[in-house]
Amino acid sequence: MRTRITGLATHDIRFPTSLELDGSDAMNPDPDYSAAYVVITTDAADGLEGHGFAFTIGRGNDVQAAAITALEPYVVGRDLESTMDDLGAVWKEMVHDSQLRWLGPEKGVMHMAISAVVNALWDLKAKREGKPVWELLADLTPEQIVELVDFRYLTDAITPGEALAILRRAEAGRAERKAELLNTGYPAYTTSPGWLGYDDAKLRKLCREAVAEGFKQIKLKVGADLEDDIRRLRIARSTVGPDIRIAIDANQRWDVSTAIAWVRELAAFDPWWVEEPTSPDDVLGHATIARAIAPVRVATGEHVQNRVVFKQLLQTGAISYLQLDAARVAGVNENIAILLLAAKFGVPVCPHAGGVGLCELVQHLSMFDYVAVSGSVENRVIEYVDHLHEHFVDPVRVAGGHYAAPTAPGFSATMRPDTLTRFAFPGGPVWSAGGRRSAS
Amino acid sequence: MRTRITGLATHDIRFPTSLELDGSDAMNPDPDYSAAYVVITTDAADGLEGHGFAFTIGRGNDVQAAAITALEPYVVGRDLESTMDDLGAVWKEMVHDSQLRWLGPEKGVMHMAISAVVNALWDLKAKREGKPVWELLADLTPEQIVELVDFRYLTDAITPGEALAILRRAEAGRAERKAELLNTGYPAYTTSPGWLGYDDAKLRKLCREAVAEGFKQIKLKVGADLEDDIRRLRIARSTVGPDIRIAIDANQRWDVSTAIAWVRELAAFDPWWVEEPTSPDDVLGHATIARAIAPVRVATGEHVQNRVVFKQLLQTGAISYLQLDAARVAGVNENIAILLLAAKFGVPVCPHAGGVGLCELVQHLSMFDYVAVSGSVENRVIEYVDHLHEHFVDPVRVAGGHYAAPTAPGFSATMRPDTLTRFAFPGGPVWSAGGRRSAS
Repeated sequence: MRTRITGLATHDIRFPTSLELDGSDAMNPDPDYSAAYVVITTDAADGLEGHGFAFTIGRGNDVQAAAITALEPYVVGRDLESTMDDLGAVWKEMVHDSQLRWLGPEKGVMHMAISAVVNALWDLKAKREGKPVWELLADLTPEQIVELVDFRYLTDAITPGEALAILRRAEAGRAERKAELLNTGYPAYTTSPGWLGYDDAKLRKLCREAVAEGFKQIKLKVGADLEDDIRRLRIARSTVGPDIRIAIDANQRWDVSTAIAWVRELAAFDPWWVEEPTSPDDVLGHATIARAIAPVRVATGEHVQNRVVFKQLLQTGAISYLQLDAARVAGVNENIAILLLAAKFGVPVCPHAGGVGLCELVQHLSMFDYVAVSGSVENRVIEYVDHLHEHFVDPVRVAGGHYAAPTAPGFSATMRPDTLTRFAFPGGPVWSAGGRRSAS
Repeated sequence: MRTRITGLATHDIRFPTSLELDGSDAMNPDPDYSAAYVVITTDAADGLEGHGFAFTIGRGNDVQAAAITALEPYVVGRDLESTMDDLGAVWKEMVHDSQLRWLGPEKGVMHMAISAVVNALWDLKAKREGKPVWELLADLTPEQIVELVDFRYLTDAITPGEALAILRRAEAGRAERKAELLNTGYPAYTTSPGWLGYDDAKLRKLCREAVAEGFKQIKLKVGADLEDDIRRLRIARSTVGPDIRIAIDANQRWDVSTAIAWVRELAAFDPWWVEEPTSPDDVLGHATIARAIAPVRVATGEHVQNRVVFKQLLQTGAISYLQLDAARVAGVNENIAILLLAAKFGVPVCPHAGGVGLCELVQHLSMFDYVAVSGSVENRVIEYVDHLHEHFVDPVRVAGGHYAAPTAPGFSATMRPDTLTRFAFPGGPVWSAGGRRSAS
């Protein structure tokens, strides 16, 4: 009997994180971390569901949820087997739909909506195959992986043939790397010490704890006030010592010349990279900054809208670290394209995480990269922020400065049922009870 | 007594244009031209309303409308006088709102929503002052104009001081140019002959009519099939003769190398510019194409998401013509920034129009540019498409290949009340009556 996709339900889930100033930076003073969450159901006897989400920081999460709902006709009613067998085709159908495309193209709310749906379909596929997503991907042949990618607008930087060659080169050693991953995990760095809203004592304490916990890299938010940044970087450097890498993150605060001048002022504290020094749309600006502040490196990606912008950041040599995001570009398929581009240009991928559930997602992408694409963890670290993991059924496990490889089937994307009830906006008890200020 | 903004109402308006293949091109085979329409009301005694809209091509117009609705708290309740007196501040409040910003930043659905609201506020301001928007803007001092612009992320290309110098240089002759505009209008070109869905006989007939009507430039859609394009360009060139400019428009269909090869095949027909040869996000790609196909020129802009991407297109010399869009970037204020950038780099602005109401809006921007910014109409033409103007209270008037300068107060953005009823989606009679296929 043929089985079908029978339902697509969206949830507006918001956490009142602004009350604690977790996640505060130079551009985002009071985020309420939120998820426009999607659940895809089928009429298969296994009862399995695909879960996915777009991450936002509060207001507008309803708009993001509406965009996911608008994708229902593209998903519901599809034959389940053939859909699961060709997720590349589903991706192209949604991304290249001429009418939806006008709303981007391939950027912003509509692209993030496609991301949520594509990732939910991957979650479902992995659950059905009884594997975590990273392993599911890493077990595909190079030909199958290339099939998942849309090379439109990329062929001046990477062709399908070049992608195939990269993947074939990485075939040797796949089994050893998989075993190593299951044994020792994947290196992480922590952003938890460095939020702008924290006072110096809290910064010092969290730096000390990060080193004790085994992290080799931490990250500090910068960009609001230069004197504050100098003081905080001095505290951090003196606390962690010379051998721990300290990344700094300006969250798009600066114009090009300000970025250059500001980073030079901080260079004495040996920052490993500066992240998002200016607009994520400014490829040339990033390249100019990178040339001016070397040997400090530039990293960006959490707000890079799609593979076409990543392509240009690589073509211009603007970034030394590529920070893909699991839920801003259009999901797994587009991130495979981005991993292949990074491999072609020899740039390490260090994913953006944090927020709600982004750690849960990106670990799968980095682990797939290690086993089947780049074949390396050199200079590669996954961001780790210790927020909101308790809301997930299969939360990340980070210990000794490493992400443990997930073993449960799926994309680690499934939120606990009581979270979907309690944090529903605006009707859930967390929001409708008195005392919380509205996020809307 | 203080007056306030008291209401923001949105309408999902769709026209079943796909039935006639008007608007068909290589990427958009069956658009249903649509507007996510907004009406801003006040408690002022004059009863004036501000009207604005985002243009989409069908599916997803509901998502666009939801994004506009999400802006209601930023507008309703504001003091009317102080809001009208500082539209630059309102722009910054919405564009830089940290939570909404996460949904872009400054791109896609949320940015287009801000565009609709900002333009509606300009419509209201112009109606209150009894002037068309172009004249309202052209009567401001250089200092007042610079105040409207946010220079964030632009200062490596243009500073407020440079902008002021450009505007001061254009102060001489403002009155003469305004008089000339009212007398002879602004040059137009027509896209009506060139839609891909039209047969050769219709193409030939429309080319002949365009010349007879006084147009000096026409545009043909290309990019679906090379042999077809060669045949259609041959027909067009032989019909219009050597002195009429023929622009070609690929609507983002090609990768970089395909664009170069394809345009070289068409070069024999002397195309004036090639529009949207590849992804609107690919600044470097456009620059590569421009170098390879010279002397054919590159034009783009209708899908360029914001001023930061326009900045780079200018910095790299990728475009010879800048095609701003009135309702994709964040409205009048951002388009003033773009006009200033273009003037700084000496690149003529030839706005994108067509769709629903885009001709009505962009005429104001080009006329303001002529009077107060660039001071020139040389090599400048506004796109004209003869679609759907009958739905507007103050439609464009094009004759003799020129746009007549609008004289009615406002932004020419107000749709006829019966249009808002008849074409409401999905409940209006045009859609709920049998025989129309659903756009959703």
